[in-house]
Amino acid sequence: MASLWLLLGLLLSSSAEAGKLLVIPSDGSHWLGMKPIVEELGRRGNQVVVVIPEASLSMGPSEHTTTLTYPVNYTKAELKASIADEFNTILSIDISTDLAKFQAFIISLDVLQMFILRNAEGLLFNKDLMKKLQEYNFDAVLTDPFEPVGAIAGEYLSIPAVYMLINHPCGVDTLSSQCPAPASYVPQAFTHFTDRMNLWQRSVNLVRTLLQPMACERMFARADEIASHVLQRKASMVEIMSHAALWFLRFDFAVEFPRPLMPNMVMIGATKGPLTKELEEFVNGSGEHGFVVFTLGSMVSQLPEAKARVFFEAFRQIPQRVLWRHTGPVPENAPKNVKLMKWLPQNDLLGHPKVKAFITHGGSHGIYEGIYHGVPLVMLPLFGDQGDNVQRLVSRGVAETLSIYDLTSEKLLVALRKVINDKSYKEKMTELSAIHRDRPIEPLDLAVFWTEFVMRHKGAVHLRPAAHELNWIQYHSLDVIGFLLLILVTVIFVTVKSCMFCFRKCFKKTQKKKKE
Amino acid sequence: MASLWLLLGLLLSSSAEAGKLLVIPSDGSHWLGMKPIVEELGRRGNQVVVVIPEASLSMGPSEHTTTLTYPVNYTKAELKASIADEFNTILSIDISTDLAKFQAFIISLDVLQMFILRNAEGLLFNKDLMKKLQEYNFDAVLTDPFEPVGAIAGEYLSIPAVYMLINHPCGVDTLSSQCPAPASYVPQAFTHFTDRMNLWQRSVNLVRTLLQPMACERMFARADEIASHVLQRKASMVEIMSHAALWFLRFDFAVEFPRPLMPNMVMIGATKGPLTKELEEFVNGSGEHGFVVFTLGSMVSQLPEAKARVFFEAFRQIPQRVLWRHTGPVPENAPKNVKLMKWLPQNDLLGHPKVKAFITHGGSHGIYEGIYHGVPLVMLPLFGDQGDNVQRLVSRGVAETLSIYDLTSEKLLVALRKVINDKSYKEKMTELSAIHRDRPIEPLDLAVFWTEFVMRHKGAVHLRPAAHELNWIQYHSLDVIGFLLLILVTVIFVTVKSCMFCFRKCFKKTQKKKKE
Repeated sequence: MASLWLLLGLLLSSSAEAGKLLVIPSDGSHWLGMKPIVEELGRRGNQVVVVIPEASLSMGPSEHTTTLTYPVNYTKAELKASIADEFNTILSIDISTDLAKFQAFIISLDVLQMFILRNAEGLLFNKDLMKKLQEYNFDAVLTDPFEPVGAIAGEYLSIPAVYMLINHPCGVDTLSSQCPAPASYVPQAFTHFTDRMNLWQRSVNLVRTLLQPMACERMFARADEIASHVLQRKASMVEIMSHAALWFLRFDFAVEFPRPLMPNMVMIGATKGPLTKELEEFVNGSGEHGFVVFTLGSMVSQLPEAKARVFFEAFRQIPQRVLWRHTGPVPENAPKNVKLMKWLPQNDLLGHPKVKAFITHGGSHGIYEGIYHGVPLVMLPLFGDQGDNVQRLVSRGVAETLSIYDLTSEKLLVALRKVINDKSYKEKMTELSAIHRDRPIEPLDLAVFWTEFVMRHKGAVHLRPAAHELNWIQYHSLDVIGFLLLILVTVIFVTVKSCMFCFRKCFKKTQKKKKE
Repeated sequence: MASLWLLLGLLLSSSAEAGKLLVIPSDGSHWLGMKPIVEELGRRGNQVVVVIPEASLSMGPSEHTTTLTYPVNYTKAELKASIADEFNTILSIDISTDLAKFQAFIISLDVLQMFILRNAEGLLFNKDLMKKLQEYNFDAVLTDPFEPVGAIAGEYLSIPAVYMLINHPCGVDTLSSQCPAPASYVPQAFTHFTDRMNLWQRSVNLVRTLLQPMACERMFARADEIASHVLQRKASMVEIMSHAALWFLRFDFAVEFPRPLMPNMVMIGATKGPLTKELEEFVNGSGEHGFVVFTLGSMVSQLPEAKARVFFEAFRQIPQRVLWRHTGPVPENAPKNVKLMKWLPQNDLLGHPKVKAFITHGGSHGIYEGIYHGVPLVMLPLFGDQGDNVQRLVSRGVAETLSIYDLTSEKLLVALRKVINDKSYKEKMTELSAIHRDRPIEPLDLAVFWTEFVMRHKGAVHLRPAAHELNWIQYHSLDVIGFLLLILVTVIFVTVKSCMFCFRKCFKKTQKKKKE
């Protein structure tokens, strides 16, 4: 019905309203989320130009758009090898303490940053291409703030920017949009806290909240230098992104803990692909017990042998069939109910009526697909925001979580049997799914509408709060409090002095009288 | 197109999803805003029961709904007379100082409150009707929090509540939803400040923000008593409304200053009626100069004779025709270009291509109609939120404002000629109108969707922030700050003590050695 609505819109609005849109996406699953929106914008008659590096993991041409590429000083093989290396480190080393996990995360983020910055230089220092982009005279830029390249390019071209993100390691969306995030119930990223925190957790969260600006400074140190060089002025990523026309947040309060928003934030949730009919035979053959889907995301297709054995042993003991994305060595006596695959049509399988559970690392795409189709989860968080996603779903009673580091077949079996046999998981997930799917307008249509809105109106100035014109002291009313205290002190001082003066006058008179 | 969409939705969804909705509206323009939504909900197959008092200004039966009435201990005539009395006081007495205006406002609010409370008692103490409402087994209540009756009834019936409001004198929407409102850029109601405040204004605004809970306590003192009596527990309106499933806010950021929102707030803007073809002859006869619409709202149709003369004299000197809602005495030499009417089809006239300006008191309905049709305004604020509405439009360069108290024909002429002849007013208003009209979904459809959502899902628990479970000290992290200070002090104390201990040990040894 949504597409009928769009079709009608297309027919009636014609190309008179069409705009020129620059798209600078980010790699990996980020591009997978942005691509359908970009293609729909092109299909509706907008001139969409997607600018990507020659070497990338997943980015490539899209329909109804023009793709421009630029050379970068690394190859796709280097990028892949480096990322695989990071994941192997995470999977093999025993980093069971929180601090060790955090250190491993920071190190892997730094490796990622290195490529992100080389990508940014590849585009921004490419004078010919930047000149060409300027000549296009774009109405807006749609980009992912996970990488600084698009934000800096948009600022350089002086065009309104639409930022689409799932979440950001240093919370640049909250900082740049000046969105209030009370530390008492809005957990910071990577704390793995829920919105119900005890005193100790709230203390950690407050410290984390206060440190966020410094975290962004550290993370964007080199990006700030590149921005300053390109823009020929002292610039910072937080300041550049504070000029955002709109923020598209790819989450839904069916998952995210409720928290304040700003008027220029649009919750576009997750877009989903269509269902196909692959693997029908294997999953239909699973009978009344149904089947389980198991994948650790697009980045990890191979587990160390010892870890893999844990899974094989557990799967041998369940009546369900298992579809597993696994490219590592297979033991000789691998159980018959397990089908190994190089690639899984995850969304199709989760949409199948016989699916019973989804074993996942907890990436955003996966969990939203799981919720959309109402499938209970067993979560094995590895990296990034996955640990936080776990909290959001476990606290709603729709998922069990396990640590990949000290996993045993028994633990896996307990969790798997729980989410499959305890009806409450499926019931709560069905409820969550109903809420998540019940929207006045489809995420894709919403994203398309607001991107076109920004192009039509040359930004969204009416949604920009005056907070951006205040400094830190003014924003927190510290000058006002000082001013009010000054008035109070002055009033008290004057009152006391006046009283003392009157008192002395009267007292003197009395003394004089007495003397007389 | 929106209605086609709704029609499709109606055909496809059928009555399987239909719910039972209790509607307890508020009187005057509040009902005019809620009525179209209620009728649409009924038309879509929901069982809608509207409960209203036997005596009211504007409330009455609506289509596709059942209306239940209950007796109250006042008559429509008393209500009308009392309100007319209040307006006459405001219009005739010279209350040019801010403090005097505020006092007059508080007094008029108290008079209004008296009727509001008698209305609440009329329904809530009517045991037969309350029992009948309980038997309906409603899925949700839609009500206006301007009057406490609906909120208390919803709490008594234990059904999810949807609150629809324009704005509230003590900001109960912000307090009850725990929505952050930084005093540095979110002006409080009745301050007449914009979002750009100087130090003095920010000081006043901070004090006002801190006093809001007390303002609500004063305003709801008797309502809290009634609520406690009905619910048989200690209750307060702020607490009852903190259980809101959703808040429908009838404003748009084309007018309102951008500020933080909570996830359960839905901006539904203003709904508008269809255009008709009345008065076509008079307004078409206005030629190239066009015409001006003048009304001071549904409450004021008569001005004191001296005031009215000011308007007649000004209108005599302009080439435009004037349509004026006026029932007072007419001078013999009244200018020919003025047409006096008992009632104006305001929305129809503002939608006419020949309209040049709109002289208005600045009520919410009027200004949204003005903005929708892109008509520059001359504003004469009288009462309530009108003074604040003025700031929102004057600061955007689409309106001029005048004080009704010291108005002269010259001042009116200057303002009127400015908004008609200075092209910038029309241009900026056209821009604002374009932004206001450019929505992904019509306000009516949005309100209907979210009301049905609450009925379908028995509330909107997933949008409820954990902030509601914290007390004031916890919410503001004051306990955490105390805890962190305690740790800091302990660490410093232990460090200093340890250092001193070591120092003394070393010192003693040295002394001993020296002695030896």
